[in-house]
Amino acid sequence: MNLNNASKDQLRQWEQQLSAEYDAIVAKKLSLDLTRGKPSSEQLSLSDGLDGILKGNYKSLDGTDTRNYGGLDGLAEARELGAHIFGVKPAEVLAQGNSSLTLMFQCLITAVEFGFTSTESAWSKAERMKFLCPVPGYDRHFTLCEQLNIDMIPVAMTANGPDMDQVEALVQADSSIKGMWCVPKYSNPTGVIYSDEVVERIAKLGKIAGNGFRVFWDNAYAVHDLAAALPLANIMEFCRAHSTEDSVLQFASTSKITHAGAGVAFVAMSEANLKGFRKFLNAQSIGPDKVNQLRHMRLLPTIDALNAHMQKHARILQPRFDAVLKALDDAFTGTDLGTWEKPAGGYFVAFDTRPHCAKDVVRLAAEAGVKLTPAGATFPYGKDPQDCNIRIAPSVPSVQEVVGAMEVFVTCVKLVAVRQQLA
Amino acid sequence: MNLNNASKDQLRQWEQQLSAEYDAIVAKKLSLDLTRGKPSSEQLSLSDGLDGILKGNYKSLDGTDTRNYGGLDGLAEARELGAHIFGVKPAEVLAQGNSSLTLMFQCLITAVEFGFTSTESAWSKAERMKFLCPVPGYDRHFTLCEQLNIDMIPVAMTANGPDMDQVEALVQADSSIKGMWCVPKYSNPTGVIYSDEVVERIAKLGKIAGNGFRVFWDNAYAVHDLAAALPLANIMEFCRAHSTEDSVLQFASTSKITHAGAGVAFVAMSEANLKGFRKFLNAQSIGPDKVNQLRHMRLLPTIDALNAHMQKHARILQPRFDAVLKALDDAFTGTDLGTWEKPAGGYFVAFDTRPHCAKDVVRLAAEAGVKLTPAGATFPYGKDPQDCNIRIAPSVPSVQEVVGAMEVFVTCVKLVAVRQQLA
Repeated sequence: MNLNNASKDQLRQWEQQLSAEYDAIVAKKLSLDLTRGKPSSEQLSLSDGLDGILKGNYKSLDGTDTRNYGGLDGLAEARELGAHIFGVKPAEVLAQGNSSLTLMFQCLITAVEFGFTSTESAWSKAERMKFLCPVPGYDRHFTLCEQLNIDMIPVAMTANGPDMDQVEALVQADSSIKGMWCVPKYSNPTGVIYSDEVVERIAKLGKIAGNGFRVFWDNAYAVHDLAAALPLANIMEFCRAHSTEDSVLQFASTSKITHAGAGVAFVAMSEANLKGFRKFLNAQSIGPDKVNQLRHMRLLPTIDALNAHMQKHARILQPRFDAVLKALDDAFTGTDLGTWEKPAGGYFVAFDTRPHCAKDVVRLAAEAGVKLTPAGATFPYGKDPQDCNIRIAPSVPSVQEVVGAMEVFVTCVKLVAVRQQLA
Repeated sequence: MNLNNASKDQLRQWEQQLSAEYDAIVAKKLSLDLTRGKPSSEQLSLSDGLDGILKGNYKSLDGTDTRNYGGLDGLAEARELGAHIFGVKPAEVLAQGNSSLTLMFQCLITAVEFGFTSTESAWSKAERMKFLCPVPGYDRHFTLCEQLNIDMIPVAMTANGPDMDQVEALVQADSSIKGMWCVPKYSNPTGVIYSDEVVERIAKLGKIAGNGFRVFWDNAYAVHDLAAALPLANIMEFCRAHSTEDSVLQFASTSKITHAGAGVAFVAMSEANLKGFRKFLNAQSIGPDKVNQLRHMRLLPTIDALNAHMQKHARILQPRFDAVLKALDDAFTGTDLGTWEKPAGGYFVAFDTRPHCAKDVVRLAAEAGVKLTPAGATFPYGKDPQDCNIRIAPSVPSVQEVVGAMEVFVTCVKLVAVRQQLA
């Protein structure tokens, strides 16, 4: 199918066929859901051993009674796990509660109101605060910016990460740009891994950016490979080489490793940043839930145990991703109907329709019983200027359900595109 | 012993005796600690059944899979437990993470930066923000104010709660007073329970206070009675009677019910306040740790179970409080050396020395091997203008250790007072 070169007659014929296909689908009264980037029950069950794993021994390796107050930084062994995930020293890592999103918010509040390294560096001292947002991106990052009145500037994603020419030009030209969102491995939603060159150029932004600039490096899918473990360059090593250690804050969690709502979140930062963040954290925290951290460390005591555990996730997720990618490949390779990356990990496949089609595709799919993430959700303020990006999340449905949902998706993409071309 | 009426000779004689007693104590090289307001290992062990209690069933009563994301408000059954503690409806309660302190901070940030009911009501719109702090009080409340640049105005505590004549006069005179800290039951550290009249007058403050005024009602010891369960008036009922429902935010947690570092925290507020707070919370939270909430509800499924559990705590704590109060009674009743309340619950006994003695008592006790909370810690900015208040926390040491530590305490109080009178 190639719409640009098709005759009106051909288009009309396709429209009739696709309309009939679509009507047949509607008649099936499906109820399928590709919206939710969360683990399936089968994945969650991999960690059901967490409850009861302590067997009455609530002491951490260094003898801490995890049941009582205190220990702001988190358990030593949990910080070690975080350090492994980030490729930094345990002393640079805090192990905290059940959500890296909360840690990101706490870091934002620290940066906006108090400043990490000095009161003068607080972003709220500036007239405006702006963030660079590679698009498509993660809607909850954008919500944090909106909550804190931080203006968002979209920058383009490529197959190697953000368009760094654009990023560098913007940062150099405007000192009110205070930070940038990054999901560097299996980026949400495009699934790409930032190239070594992109990682190094991001590490160097601290040299050209204004006072207090911080990259929010949300490494949510650090160990979430579908097959072979693919490498991501270590951004903190580049930072050390370029003396920009204070410019990057790294986040991760066990949300998609153990139980999504009941995991452990990690943040890594320079000693100078830690000093400011600890002051903020200490005022409001009695310390994280160390009992839950201990459970996690008993379940995943070594890196080998972690890797083996992630391979079990991969075995569950892989066929679902295969089903999505096969459907897209069969339907759209060689056509001018859409483009997509082929993620080797993470939780999403992002599909770009022809311009100004995404909303209609999502609406038609919904009317045929297939829920998709609202078009625009992957852009700041919910506005995709091209109205083309759709995020597909295949983890929760069964493989058969993914296959069924993708049939609907493919039909809707074709039908909307053909109708648009005819109009 | 009555210093005001004692002759110089008598004072000199006492000084010699007490110095000798003190030297004998120093020679014992004690190492005792009355600083920590936290549960003992014996108390923590009462809840060791938490780990493993789920027996593979991670579903809450309404069928929610607690292992996955979501459920911002907390589990329905956990909110019911909170509602029981506060005496409000479950719909007015959120069950959250492991710390009510964090919830207090989140509410403060909401009030300061965003406003609970409108952007206009944000405290940061005003030139100054001030809080009323009944003294002596809880140091971590004061730290939150300091962190957020909220000026603190001390008001006197009485045996019935804060001096309400003073409170009302201040609130009426100064609209920049935005809130007030209260620990209404077994107040930290004096141990008093606010009288019904005081509770009602606090509930009425919203009528005379400026825009956005909020009482932070930290009911940390709601069910923490040593013997009979003593009542505290229901502040929200008074608020409803006086149409000031938005002026009170209530906090509690299971920190001193189950495991101190790994419990569940609760906040209760009006529908209007909830609307503002949920917006704030939703931006930064993937929902609280519902698995841990479920564990708590399996351990304490009914109010009767909760009460029986708290009686086990009381049986452990009571002899420690008895030891403190007996030592104070034996040494100081009928003297002019100090005053104190007799708490029937909570975690502290507060002792007021003669003016300008507390720091010296704490120092002498430390040199004799008994750690006490730093003098001044119970006042804003760490400054007790009378230098007289000392907080005694007897929960962690054994009864025998409490007895030994109180012998040292009593000797130090007498010695410092006598020396001061001689000087």
